[in-house]
Amino acid sequence: DPSLKVFTLNSNKDLAQEITENIGVTLGKNSVMRFSDGEVQINIEESIRGCDIYLIQSTSAPANEHIMELLIMIDALKRASARTINIVLPYYGYGRQDRKARAREPITAKLVANLLETAGATRVLTVDLHATQIQGFFDIPVDQLMGVPILSDYFKAKKLDDVVVVSPDHGGVVRARKMADRLKTPIAIIDKRRPKPNVSEVMNIVGNIEGKTAIIIDDIIDTAGTITLAANALVEHGAKEVYACCTHPVLSGPAIERIRNSKIKELVVTNTIALKEEQQIDKISSLSVAPLLAEAIIRVHEHSSVSTLFD
Amino acid sequence: DPSLKVFTLNSNKDLAQEITENIGVTLGKNSVMRFSDGEVQINIEESIRGCDIYLIQSTSAPANEHIMELLIMIDALKRASARTINIVLPYYGYGRQDRKARAREPITAKLVANLLETAGATRVLTVDLHATQIQGFFDIPVDQLMGVPILSDYFKAKKLDDVVVVSPDHGGVVRARKMADRLKTPIAIIDKRRPKPNVSEVMNIVGNIEGKTAIIIDDIIDTAGTITLAANALVEHGAKEVYACCTHPVLSGPAIERIRNSKIKELVVTNTIALKEEQQIDKISSLSVAPLLAEAIIRVHEHSSVSTLFD
Ligand SMILES: Nc1ncnc2c1ncn2[C@@H]1O[C@H](COP(=O)(O)O)[C@@H](O)[C@H]1O
Ligand SMILES: Nc1ncnc2c1ncn2[C@@H]1O[C@H](COP(=O)(O)O)[C@@H](O)[C@H]1O
Repeated sequence: DPSLKVFTLNSNKDLAQEITENIGVTLGKNSVMRFSDGEVQINIEESIRGCDIYLIQSTSAPANEHIMELLIMIDALKRASARTINIVLPYYGYGRQDRKARAREPITAKLVANLLETAGATRVLTVDLHATQIQGFFDIPVDQLMGVPILSDYFKAKKLDDVVVVSPDHGGVVRARKMADRLKTPIAIIDKRRPKPNVSEVMNIVGNIEGKTAIIIDDIIDTAGTITLAANALVEHGAKEVYACCTHPVLSGPAIERIRNSKIKELVVTNTIALKEEQQIDKISSLSVAPLLAEAIIRVHEHSSVSTLFD
Repeated sequence: DPSLKVFTLNSNKDLAQEITENIGVTLGKNSVMRFSDGEVQINIEESIRGCDIYLIQSTSAPANEHIMELLIMIDALKRASARTINIVLPYYGYGRQDRKARAREPITAKLVANLLETAGATRVLTVDLHATQIQGFFDIPVDQLMGVPILSDYFKAKKLDDVVVVSPDHGGVVRARKMADRLKTPIAIIDKRRPKPNVSEVMNIVGNIEGKTAIIIDDIIDTAGTITLAANALVEHGAKEVYACCTHPVLSGPAIERIRNSKIKELVVTNTIALKEEQQIDKISSLSVAPLLAEAIIRVHEHSSVSTLFD
């Protein structure tokens, strides 16, 4: 279908290339550069009049650069008479700023939704929002894909014995339950408590992990503090070995050092965020979401159901 | 008036401090930091319920960081029940991307206007837009202040003899005319022409500069290519000495090196963009727009005329 065109910006060029190969199209031609003063310079180098555009960009670090590239590209697409502008956001940055946790904070996840619509986005396709409520921040259709099936299939293929899926906190239990259903295993939960103010946290474990292979699952691993402390606590409480996995490898600050020094045997992530050179260590395996996103793009384009992708 | 509050972000802290001293208020308390992954973390640390906020930020380099800080702060102010959110933009970044110069380009100056309104800005106060048309990109009131009076007063005080004000290109003639009126001098224009394609430009000068003191004026000096070539051409054509001035010292890439090596005796700029350490060289003098912006803020707050500031 010549009306379907896939474009990308600077965050995930390899993933975009892989998605177009899965769909069977070539990547749209555009340049994304910087003027001497650092302002974004974008040019679309082929006609897109009347086309349905699928624009791939994660708003991963540097988030502000990637967001501005995205908004400016949407503006250019709109002015060049695209029929629809479908934003494929493998990782939705600022997703953790989704509520006022303290007085007079911004809700940047909502702001970014408004900015995308203002620029001219007509639809969003994304993977594992930090909070599903973020879908409601948009007034345009949002389809959310799930990382759990990809991560689960990888562990299923390993044929590990006596597995328990572990949520690193109470917020992640639903996700852990989904993975446990796919792997047909029980779950456990890390139950952090601070007995008194200014006393350090106690890592309690709800569920049986003794002698088992634990797989900790989270949506985002950022500084890796939570996940590495959880892994060490699991080993101390008698787990045989500990794997960890997440959809979005943010991996900022001390993350790589912490993972390297932790009791985690293997960390499994997806390529919603491209790993930098120094993040590509032996302990980390990366799975591709390209087949999933390619299939979702085809379904959106054919007006067929995206949610049935997970049936 | 306790309902007037001035806040700032990371682009122009010294200017903001000076503005509050001119108005006679203290700077509002807020933090502007980064999370470990580089996302902007903002918190407003005093109540602003029902207040009229004047938020000072240039969208100078790093433009994308400064724009996102601004949008996120506006979001936080709006959610904290500010009555009005008046954005003071000493320098309006992306102002040069104000039209489609080529097919399928964005019009980022318009996009940024839309983004500011979407975030919740209720008024804009700015200095020397690259194109006055940018005022029309907004659906909220925009007041534009002028740098020419400040720059002119500085040169008037020097009591230079036999001055000619020079526009470095045809686009800048109106600005040069305004300065010449204030200094009561004639004007000249650098008339660049390319005799044939792929033949280098010829610097022709329209007007009499022989033996005179030339003052070149531009709105923005970015890589300083235009202004330093103009200065050298003026000297070659017989000017006695050459000064240069602009409102917005973007000064990116080779700018400082070019200015240092040029025939420019002194470059006079304003602090709409804060000079970095390495940009603070002897040849460059910086004038403050703080008194002008302070007066404009007071007038806006009292609902009196801003344009009469220049009568
Ligand atoms: N980029 C970020 N890095 C770390 N913390 C963040 C970030 N963005 C938001 N937060 C904070 O994370 C908390 C929300 O995380 P969660 O409780 O996991 O939903 C809020 O208190 C936010 O202030
Ligand atoms: N940040 C920038 N640095 C250099 N050139 C720019 C920048 N932004 C826009 N432009 C280009 O500058 C031209 C407009 O400048 P002007 O002719 O001076 O109004 C357009 O061709 C733009 O593509």
